[in-house]
Amino acid sequence: MTDISPFQTPSQKQNEREAKRKAVLRAAVRIFNERGFHATLLEDVAVSLGISKPTIYHYLGNKEQVLLQCVLHGLEQLMEAAESAQQAPGRGIDRLRNYLRRYAEINMDDFGRCVIRTGDETLSEEGRSKFRALKGEIDLAMRALIEQAIADGSIAPCDSKLLAFTLAGALNWPARWFSPQGTQSKEEVAEQMVDLLTAGFAPR
Amino acid sequence: MTDISPFQTPSQKQNEREAKRKAVLRAAVRIFNERGFHATLLEDVAVSLGISKPTIYHYLGNKEQVLLQCVLHGLEQLMEAAESAQQAPGRGIDRLRNYLRRYAEINMDDFGRCVIRTGDETLSEEGRSKFRALKGEIDLAMRALIEQAIADGSIAPCDSKLLAFTLAGALNWPARWFSPQGTQSKEEVAEQMVDLLTAGFAPR
Repeated sequence: MTDISPFQTPSQKQNEREAKRKAVLRAAVRIFNERGFHATLLEDVAVSLGISKPTIYHYLGNKEQVLLQCVLHGLEQLMEAAESAQQAPGRGIDRLRNYLRRYAEINMDDFGRCVIRTGDETLSEEGRSKFRALKGEIDLAMRALIEQAIADGSIAPCDSKLLAFTLAGALNWPARWFSPQGTQSKEEVAEQMVDLLTAGFAPR
Repeated sequence: MTDISPFQTPSQKQNEREAKRKAVLRAAVRIFNERGFHATLLEDVAVSLGISKPTIYHYLGNKEQVLLQCVLHGLEQLMEAAESAQQAPGRGIDRLRNYLRRYAEINMDDFGRCVIRTGDETLSEEGRSKFRALKGEIDLAMRALIEQAIADGSIAPCDSKLLAFTLAGALNWPARWFSPQGTQSKEEVAEQMVDLLTAGFAPR
């Protein structure tokens, strides 16, 4: 039987650092969502993890940098969902609907909620341009899925830009009202909302 | 010929006071929408009107009170639209669609934009409960219109609460992206969005 070394390998150190960074990010995003950026104190984030404020600076930087990393993480989740929808086989409408459900679910989750609730004006100039650029990419990805579905005839011809904004708005909004303590799970809410948007409210 | 008196009657004084209050409110709402609450200085609102900061305090109070009156004014516009939709004759779907168009137009306008862009957490406890109560009434008014349209068979049976949230979200979102400098007017955008939501994106 070999002894377990008390010294970490470089890859263990790297993993541990990443795990700590993520734990701080998760604690911070919840407090941002609950109180808003201006009323959030990094001190409270630190207390919620039993660590010191300088430890947060060490892993993530100042409050605005912490917020920026929260929204970038949310936008990454949305980009991953868009990319996997792009690569999926099948009819355009099915790929679009799968993406929309996933998009809504992310927006009901901690990091997606933070994306929606963060106004551009909260970020520094540099953060703001990153934030806007990524949101622009996500808009374009939704529009591309819509155009593919129009092209294969599985959705009705329309102004793809306006449809993308309409769908995004409807599915962003749960970030403001969804409560995980409610009677429906985020998956159920996402599915029903996407069905309403697919069929429209006029009888078929 | 009678001389015009240089002294105002009480009703003239009252009208003048109200006109000044509204001018301050209009100047303030634009700066809030542009910069966000925290970056807005009442000093800049005053400068934009060629008046002093104490004059703003006199007509509207401190910055949070000014914001509260901006959002309450936006919510009043939405309530008026809901009431006039309630009283209109015709099929439920037509009354709902008229209301949705008006709802979207208001949200692309100064005061409606301010309602959407203001997070609860920006307001004081007292302001917050007024803000939430009025938003709740507007949600209920939309839900009532949906239920009347389901009852008369002009829209498809569905979960009226979830449909109301879905429609509201889609039609709130232009507060974040619509630009009056764009190629389409707010009336055109509102009409097209409501058509997309009515018909859904699946071919009919």
